[in-house]
This record gives sequence, C-alpha cells and structure tokens, in this order.
Amino acid sequence: MGSADYVYPATNVECSHRVAIPPPQPFVKSLKYNLKETFFPDDPLRQFKNQPTSRRFVLGLKYFFPIFDWAPSYTFDFLKSDFIAGITIASLAIPQGISYAKLANLPPILGLYSSFIPPLVYAMMGSSRDLAVGTVAVASLLTASMLGNEVNANENPKLYLHLAFTATFFAGAFQASLGLLRLGFIVDFLSHATIIGFMAGAATVVILQQLKGILGLEHFTHSTDLVSVMRSVFSQTHQWRWESAALGFSFLFFLLVTRYFSKRKPKFFWVSAMAPLTSVILGSLLVYLTHAEKHGVQVIGYLKKGLNPPSFEDLVLVSPYLSTAIKTGIITGVIALAEGIAVGRSFAMFKNYNIDGNKEMIAFGTMNIVGSCTSCYLTTGPFSRSAVNFNAGCKTAVSNIVMALAVMVTLLFLTPLFHYTPLVVLSSIIIGAMLGLIDYEAAIHLWTVDKFDFIVCMSAYAGVVFGSVEIGLVVAVAISLLRVLLFVARPKTFILGNIPDTMIYRNVEQYTNSNTVPGVLILEIDAPIYFANASYLRERIARWVDEEEDRLKTSGETSLQYVILDMGAVGNIDTSGISMLEEVKKVMDRRELKLVLANPGAEVMKKLNKSKLIDKIGQEWIYLTVGEAVGACNFLLHTCKPDPLKEESEAHNKV
Amino acid sequence: MGSADYVYPATNVECSHRVAIPPPQPFVKSLKYNLKETFFPDDPLRQFKNQPTSRRFVLGLKYFFPIFDWAPSYTFDFLKSDFIAGITIASLAIPQGISYAKLANLPPILGLYSSFIPPLVYAMMGSSRDLAVGTVAVASLLTASMLGNEVNANENPKLYLHLAFTATFFAGAFQASLGLLRLGFIVDFLSHATIIGFMAGAATVVILQQLKGILGLEHFTHSTDLVSVMRSVFSQTHQWRWESAALGFSFLFFLLVTRYFSKRKPKFFWVSAMAPLTSVILGSLLVYLTHAEKHGVQVIGYLKKGLNPPSFEDLVLVSPYLSTAIKTGIITGVIALAEGIAVGRSFAMFKNYNIDGNKEMIAFGTMNIVGSCTSCYLTTGPFSRSAVNFNAGCKTAVSNIVMALAVMVTLLFLTPLFHYTPLVVLSSIIIGAMLGLIDYEAAIHLWTVDKFDFIVCMSAYAGVVFGSVEIGLVVAVAISLLRVLLFVARPKTFILGNIPDTMIYRNVEQYTNSNTVPGVLILEIDAPIYFANASYLRERIARWVDEEEDRLKTSGETSLQYVILDMGAVGNIDTSGISMLEEVKKVMDRRELKLVLANPGAEVMKKLNKSKLIDKIGQEWIYLTVGEAVGACNFLLHTCKPDPLKEESEAHNKV
Repeated sequence: MGSADYVYPATNVECSHRVAIPPPQPFVKSLKYNLKETFFPDDPLRQFKNQPTSRRFVLGLKYFFPIFDWAPSYTFDFLKSDFIAGITIASLAIPQGISYAKLANLPPILGLYSSFIPPLVYAMMGSSRDLAVGTVAVASLLTASMLGNEVNANENPKLYLHLAFTATFFAGAFQASLGLLRLGFIVDFLSHATIIGFMAGAATVVILQQLKGILGLEHFTHSTDLVSVMRSVFSQTHQWRWESAALGFSFLFFLLVTRYFSKRKPKFFWVSAMAPLTSVILGSLLVYLTHAEKHGVQVIGYLKKGLNPPSFEDLVLVSPYLSTAIKTGIITGVIALAEGIAVGRSFAMFKNYNIDGNKEMIAFGTMNIVGSCTSCYLTTGPFSRSAVNFNAGCKTAVSNIVMALAVMVTLLFLTPLFHYTPLVVLSSIIIGAMLGLIDYEAAIHLWTVDKFDFIVCMSAYAGVVFGSVEIGLVVAVAISLLRVLLFVARPKTFILGNIPDTMIYRNVEQYTNSNTVPGVLILEIDAPIYFANASYLRERIARWVDEEEDRLKTSGETSLQYVILDMGAVGNIDTSGISMLEEVKKVMDRRELKLVLANPGAEVMKKLNKSKLIDKIGQEWIYLTVGEAVGACNFLLHTCKPDPLKEESEAHNKV
Repeated sequence: MGSADYVYPATNVECSHRVAIPPPQPFVKSLKYNLKETFFPDDPLRQFKNQPTSRRFVLGLKYFFPIFDWAPSYTFDFLKSDFIAGITIASLAIPQGISYAKLANLPPILGLYSSFIPPLVYAMMGSSRDLAVGTVAVASLLTASMLGNEVNANENPKLYLHLAFTATFFAGAFQASLGLLRLGFIVDFLSHATIIGFMAGAATVVILQQLKGILGLEHFTHSTDLVSVMRSVFSQTHQWRWESAALGFSFLFFLLVTRYFSKRKPKFFWVSAMAPLTSVILGSLLVYLTHAEKHGVQVIGYLKKGLNPPSFEDLVLVSPYLSTAIKTGIITGVIALAEGIAVGRSFAMFKNYNIDGNKEMIAFGTMNIVGSCTSCYLTTGPFSRSAVNFNAGCKTAVSNIVMALAVMVTLLFLTPLFHYTPLVVLSSIIIGAMLGLIDYEAAIHLWTVDKFDFIVCMSAYAGVVFGSVEIGLVVAVAISLLRVLLFVARPKTFILGNIPDTMIYRNVEQYTNSNTVPGVLILEIDAPIYFANASYLRERIARWVDEEEDRLKTSGETSLQYVILDMGAVGNIDTSGISMLEEVKKVMDRRELKLVLANPGAEVMKKLNKSKLIDKIGQEWIYLTVGEAVGACNFLLHTCKPDPLKEESEAHNKV
C-alpha cells in the first residue's frame, strides 16, 4: 500500500466508505422485533422450537414446575445436605416467624403458618436452589403501617387479620401477573442504590419500633418516623423497665457475639444460625423458672396447636377496605419481589446457575396466593435466612421442604413450649437481624463510585426514617427516574481531538494528549436526540461554536470553517430531533460554516433519509468516521493542496 | 512506516494507545459544572463578565426589557411597516378576541381588554419581533372546561369571572417562575408530535363546540368530547335553525376562500387578514337592516364603553376555589407557553435572530400577571395572528403597540358598533381559524419518519377528542416519557462486523457488506448502563453469546473465544451497571470466554477505576478502538503467529 497513488474521497460522492442506510424493513416486522426485545428479551420460548407437542407439554410443565426438572436426578447425598440445611433454617424460622408476625401486629402463630405452606409451594415452582422462604421484617412493618391507617389491630383484630390475608392475596396476584405479562422489568426500576437506602431505612425504623419491647413500654406511638418514636420513648422515661431492658440487651449481645464469631469462622455458621432458637429456649426457661411474666416481662402466651386453618373465605373482597388491601398488596408485593429476586440472583451467581426473573415472579405469586388461602401472610426469600441456608450447604429446594416439615412438627406438638417466651427476646432477635441490613459499607462504596447513586440511597434512607416507608420508596424511585430523564434531557457533548499519530478522535478532556484540528470543530453527542433534549442540544451546539470562535479570535488561529458532529453515540432520533438538526444546519449555513456528520447509526440514517434531511445536508458530507470527515475537511481547507502528513494519516484507514 | 518492524500491542500493558482515565476533578467543581449545564446551558451571564457595575445594570435592564436594546435604533421606516402590520392584526384581533372570550364563557368585552394591556407589556419585555399577543382558542376552551367543572358560568357569572382572573394570575406567576428558576426545559417535554396531535384535537373540539352557534341551539352539552357533543346535536334536530346555519356557512365559505386566495398569492395577505372584520361588519349590517335578532339570530348585545377596569381586588385567593384556579392556571399557562415559545422560535428562525426561552417565559408571565390585574384573561402569542403580523411586514414589537392603540380606540368609541354582530359570525371565524390548526400533513410526515411519534400524536388527538383536553395532554406526555424510559430500559445492542479493507467495525445490519471476525463476538451497547437496563443487558449479552455459539456449532466454524463490548455509545454507568459488568465478567470467565472492552468513555472509565472493576477485567483488556481489540484477540487466537493480513490492518492504525 502506498500513500502516493491514493485518491482523496473529499467531497467525492463515490467515496468508498459510504454511510449505509439500513435496508428498509416492513413496519410489522420491526414492530414485532421491538415487542420481542421489550417483553421477551431472554427468549423463553427458544427451547420449545421444533419440538413435538408431547415434548412441549413436558417442557412447559418443567418450565412452571422446575421440580420435575431436577427431582429425577436427586440423590441421597443431596438429601443429607438439604436435611442439615433445612433443620438449621427451621431453627431460625420459628423465632423469626413469631417476631415478624408481632411486628405486623398479627397473631404470632401466623409466623409459623407462613413458614409451612409457602416453602412447599416454592420448592415445586421456584428456580433458585438456595432461597429459603419466609416472612420479612420490612414487608411486615409495611403491612402494619398501611393496614393500621385503616383498621386498628387491637380494636378490630379479626378485620385486620382478614385484611392482611386479602393484601397477601393481591400481592401474590400482582406478582404472578407481572411474571405472566413479562413485566418483570418493573422491578428493575428499584435500583441497587434505592434498595440499599431503603433497606437500611426500614431496618432503622424496625429497630426503633423494638424500643417498645426492649423498654417494656405499654403505650407506644403508631407512627414509624424517628421524631415520633423518640418523642414517644422519652416522654415516658418513668415507664422504662430495667428487667426487660437488661434481658433484651444481654440477648442482643449474645446474638451479636455469635454472629461475629460465625462471620470470622464460616465453618461455624450454625452457631449464629442456632443462636435465635437458643435465645428463645433460654429466655423461656428463665421466665418459667423466675415467673418473670408476673413482674412486667411480657410473654407470647397461648399458641393454638394444629396446622394452618383455611382462610379462603376470610378474604375481604368488598369495599370500603378493598382499595387499602390492593394498595398494601401491590406495594408490599413489589418490595418482597425485589428482595426475593435480588437474593435468588446473588446466590445463583455464586453457584453459576441462572435465575429467570419472570419465572420467579410466577413462583412467588402462586406461593402468596396459596398462602393467603391458608392463613399465611406475605412471604418472600429473606436474605438472612437464605444466607444461612447457603452456608449450611443446601443443594436444592428440598431444604425448604425439610424446614416446612420441621415447622409442621412444631405446629402439631411443640406450640405450648413458646408460652413463656418473653417478647423482649423476640425484640432482640429482630434488632440482631436488622443491624445486618444496615449496609453502611455499600453506602460508602456508592459515595466513592457514583455520587448520584449515593444521593438516591440517602434520600431513600431519609425518606423512610423521617417520613414513612412509602415516602422513602416514592422519593427514591422518583429521583432515580429523574436521573434517567436528566441523562436524556441534558446529554453530554464533548470536543474531540486527534490522538497523535492515529486517525482516532477522542474526547479532549479524557485524552489530554489529543489535539484539536485547526479550522474544524468536532463535537460528539452522547445520547439519543429526542424532544426532551432537542432545544438544549441546539443551544449547546451554538454555544460550543461561539466559544470556539471566541477562542480562535483571541489566539488568532485559522478561523472556524467546519463543524463535525460525531453521531456514533446517538442511538435514535425522533422528529423533534430531525427538526433540530435542520435548524442547526440553517444556523451553520448562516454563519458560513459547513455541517458534517460522522458515523450516524442505522436508526439515525433511516430517519435522515425518510425526512429528506440527508439531501439538505448533502450525502457527501456524511462520513463513516470522524477521521475521514476531518480528512475531507482538511483537503478542502488547503484548497486541493493536500497536506502530506494528513494525507498519510487519512490513507492509513484504507488498505 | 513499515509493517515489518511493528510490534503487536496484544496483551502488552505498555500498549501505546491506552484508554485514558480522565484526570480526577474535585466533587464541587463537577457538581457546579453539571448544575450549570442543567440550568444555564445558554450561559446567560456571559455578557456580564468583566463589566463595571453601571454597565452591568444597563445590561440587566436590557436583558429584562429588550425594548431598551432596540428602541434607540428604531427608525421611521420601521414605524411605517409596524403601523401597517399593527392595524392589520388589530382588525383580526377584535373579532377573534370577542369570539374566544365567548368560547371561554367570559363576557365578550374581555377579549378586547386582553388585546390592549398584555401587548403593551410584551412589547417592552418580549424578545420576539414577530409575535402578536392575544388570546387563544385552546386556552380559552380549557379555561371554560376546567373552571366550568367547579362553577357554572351562567348561574354565578361573577365568581366565574373572578376565578378566570385568578387562574390567569397563577398562569402568569407559574410562567414567570419557570423562567426565573431556569426551568424552561419543562416545556421541552411537550414534544413536537404531542403538540401537533394536541392542537388538532383541541381544534376539533373547538369546532364541535361551534355547532351550538352555527345551528342556533339554546341548550348544549357542557362536555367537550365528540360522543357527548354528537349526542347533544342530534338529539335536538328539531331545534336547528336554518337561518343561522345558512348565515354561518356562507361566512365560513367566505373566510376559507379568502384564506385560500391569500395563501396562493402571499402579496394579498391582507385579504384573509381583513376577512374576519369584514364578516363582522357585513354580518352586523345584515342583522341591523333585517332585524334578524328578533328572528332567532343571537347577537353580542351591549358592550360597555371604556378601558380595562382594575381587577386586582377580584382575585380569589381563598379556598375552596383556590386549588381549582391554581390547577387551571398551571395547565393553561404551560399550554400557552408552549404555543407562544414555539411560534416565537419559528419566526425567529426565518429572520435569523435568537429567542431566549427563559426570557420569553418571564415576559409571558409578567404580561399575564399584569393582565390578571387589569381585567384580562390568559394571553400568549397565537400562531394565526403572529403569522399575519409577519406577513404584514412587521419589524419590531411596535406592531403590538399599534394594535393595542387600535383596540384602545375601539374600546373608547366603537363598542356600540358590535351590538348587532351575530354570534354565528363569531362561530364561523373560530371554525375558520381552527381548521388551519389541524395539520394533517404534519401527521403524515410523522408517520413516514417516525412511527412512534405518530402514535404519540394520535394518542394526544384521540385523548382530546374522545376524552378531554387534560386527558389528551396527560396521555401524550406519558407516552412520550415512556418512550424515553423504554429507550433506556431496552437499549439496542448490535453485532459489529469489519468493513472490508479497513480497521472500522460497524453494525452488520446497517452495513451488509461487513464481515464478522471468526472466534470473536463484537457487541455494541447503544445507551448508558443504568439500573433500569442492567438486568436486561446482562440477559441480552448472554443471549447474543448463546446464539453465536449455536450458530458456530451448526456451521462448524472456529469456536467463540472473545467477546468485545464496544462501549463508545455508553455515555454513563451507575453502580447497578458496574455490578452488571462484574457479573458479565464472571459469566464469561465461567464459559471460558475473554471479556474485552473497547473505547469506554470518560465517565465509564472513571467509574470502572473507582470501583476497581478495571483491575478485575484487566487494564490490558481495555482498548481504544474495536480495531485494536480485534487485533489483539486475533494475535492471541493464532498463538503468536500473527496473520500477516491482520497484522497489516492493525498496523495501519499507527504511523
């Protein structure tokens, strides 16, 4: 290859690297493609292709009930591991279940019911091998606060209970329909940062609520925000009970020490996993022996023996409470879903298998629908319990079945044992679990990596702690969306410069060694051109040109003659964007500048062509790369006396 | 330059074109930069830099009152042109003002008041030279429907009138504060497509409302939707009055013919401009001579002589109507602003001068605040009137002053002349003006260029016509925003191929002659990586890899070894995006594929670096261009026996 015999493309229309206009596609085909990408990005029907009907049926069954997929290859070794894991999580599930039911202002026995039926459903339908099903603190608290606004749990416990079942039913229905309608991506709008802030805020709120149990207070505010709780606690200092507080703090200390120990030596995971049950046993024994229940230490009291009673007929499907139940169901359902899916996905990453979000939603949804008809309230895959399950070496969802059976045995025979369990121990268990949810290290990480995400996280936290759980959630989602909209409304534009000895042009701020080209202003636009940013871009491009001309005037360099827009990052353009480009073209003409486009993508070329703007700009002024565009401009700048160095660098692009 | 002595960069860390991590910037500095780009993209304070205080004061005065800028250079020639234009638009303003006031269910005289004070204010503060100020049909209709929901204009005309002033006050206050707070970009969220559909829908609704006047009906529905109006019209066919209808259609015919004539011969613009006033005069004469008012032809009736009475004390700033007034004010204010600014900008484009959106908002806002205190209702820059002004050869805003003076003379001496003006003529004038707003050609253009914009446009139209003006607006804005969110939630990903004989890699679907590289999958991601698309991208990348491996397996080609992600179009990344890349890296490792990044931008590099992901990927696997990345992969694929052809093409990138 010699550069001597090379012919410049310049304004020659037969330039060999013309920017292609993509082949036209029928509207229906592109619509179909777009719908598929929006709703079926993971192509779930792929395995059904070219299969006989019977095979398709089996595949469909396996799709909805993954147990049929893995059960045939289940081994005795697996069972041993799953059995140990199942017993371990049952020992955690029983006290946690009771605690969280108290948090939701529901009868404690519901916590046990909810650890019996839902895990069985999930074991058949879920695709995660590590998720342990159960109730969670945040959803319990949310249920209490949202339903509590409508019905007082103490004055009207029956209605409150029925509303809780109804809310669970709608949560399940909503979750399942999200999955069936392939709308799982709605959960993606809860960003990582939002969830960190939200979880920490909810944990703080839950801990604050435990002050009631720890301090043995009888009256307590119904609000969840920091200010109300602090006012409530410090307005009745004379009511504080030291027996209760002493007991609470000693168990909390015990729980935290075991956790610390297990964290240091992962082999002893069972120490911290067994700690809550141990606390419950120790606490109950202590109360039983000292008759502390008669000295102001509140206990759980009578728990009914027997399995879950049916509750299908308890669902409240009539006004005026229906809308409250639906609202509570949808909000708690989304939160529970987000936690469950995030947990499932994290552990799947460790063990290198895949979780299908939409399939999981169907599993969670069915589990909650069935749960709402069998006296359970909202369940999902809590992080703490699943982590214990994972550490205990579970292999498949059979560990959930083992846990369910253990809970069943408890329900049938062991409920009287919990009669003397002091509430303060339950409070300690909740606080211990909640402290683990305040992930300050993650917040610091957000601050280092992305300040905006940190702001989102902190807004969610502050919203939950100072407002309410719902306010925190709405604020965080709104700020996250605002960021996306701001990205589109205020796209970045850069000046590009030439990286020495190459044909490559890059952002001069990122590549400090790059040089701008005399007489040519190269701008990169870093977002799709849409109605939301068209005016901004028009003004911003004008300002870049003004600033460049001012600079050239003061430094006395070659005056500006070409403006090259690098469209490589412009993924799409709408009609407002086309009008904007048309205006920019007019403004450039008026200022006697030549507008040149480099590397417009398929969508942009298609629309430039359809709107005939391509002819106004001139097809010969649209280049495949910034390098070629600059080459052509330089050629014309030096009035057909090509600068040998530039010619050479231009030529390198071609073989 | 010879390719023989060239040393491959491959995995060599001292690769000469390393991707630069932008120099770190203090947080405060980058925050300041971002805030400036968001709120001051046009840098309005630029002219104030390095100026003494007195000069700054003068510049500030000129900024808020552009009249001080252009008045000193005003000439007698300008006055001649402006005088002709002013008289022309006054002849249009008087009948239109009366018609639109009727449309808003307000006393007709308000239309004249509103063409007197607001144009004077705009002449001082506005920066457009072509805008003619006045009331508009859509805002009038909106006022009628929104306030009418709360107060019946016939039963309680005084309260209704006062509420209209209050709504105008809040519209002005909202407009001015948008401008002062530099939030003008909110108006950008009404896209071009939305406005076309919305305007056409509103015009249809307004025309439907005129059926009352044309058919001489006494009872008419208060709803604005097509179904209600049609039902109302056809349920009382026996009430239709042929005299009224005949008069109405003849004037409409006259107006349309003059418009058609003026459009064909732009020199005779005054023919169509004068036609409404001519119709009014002819109609009034006809009624006066035939005493038609006694035979069922409704007339305007008595109009009070005299200038605008003050209305400051009429503002209703107390509940229960305050919230209605605020809501009406904000919605009508935004609509009026969008129309006024779009009109101002279009004519500024023709004459090559600039309109500052935020400054215009302050002018519109002040004009409406002053208007609300002087018995005017909402005004803006209507398209029809401004077009006549432009065609009449106006030079500056003095034409508005001339119009205001003409209206003043009318108010002082000529109001009795309108006593016998038949309402049906006003209906014809409104219909004539509205037909021009139904821009079906623009809708066809949208269909050709961008199907999605067409859908937005049609939804706005259908929403307005079948629902209400507010519903249409909300639907269209929601769909537009959904598009922006979908762009981010479902970004395009492409396979890139090599364009023959170059180092350039482009979308294989756009460039059908490009070739994929054996053993290497090159993907371009076409949007920022945010929480909203992180899960999708993870799944989509996995699917691209699956599909490529399937394809290679069936065709028996070299198996896949490298996946190159072209990050050139990834403008930003958040912490969810970073986690996603981390997961993709793990998945690739598990599948024994090498993940390579090409051309990450400044923001992406900054965050990869801060999150330490750069070390996990390996800095040597991040290349400046796809070409270099492919070169390095090829080098390793051929186990250190570089393919001479590939080596040459790699070398071309370097001098």
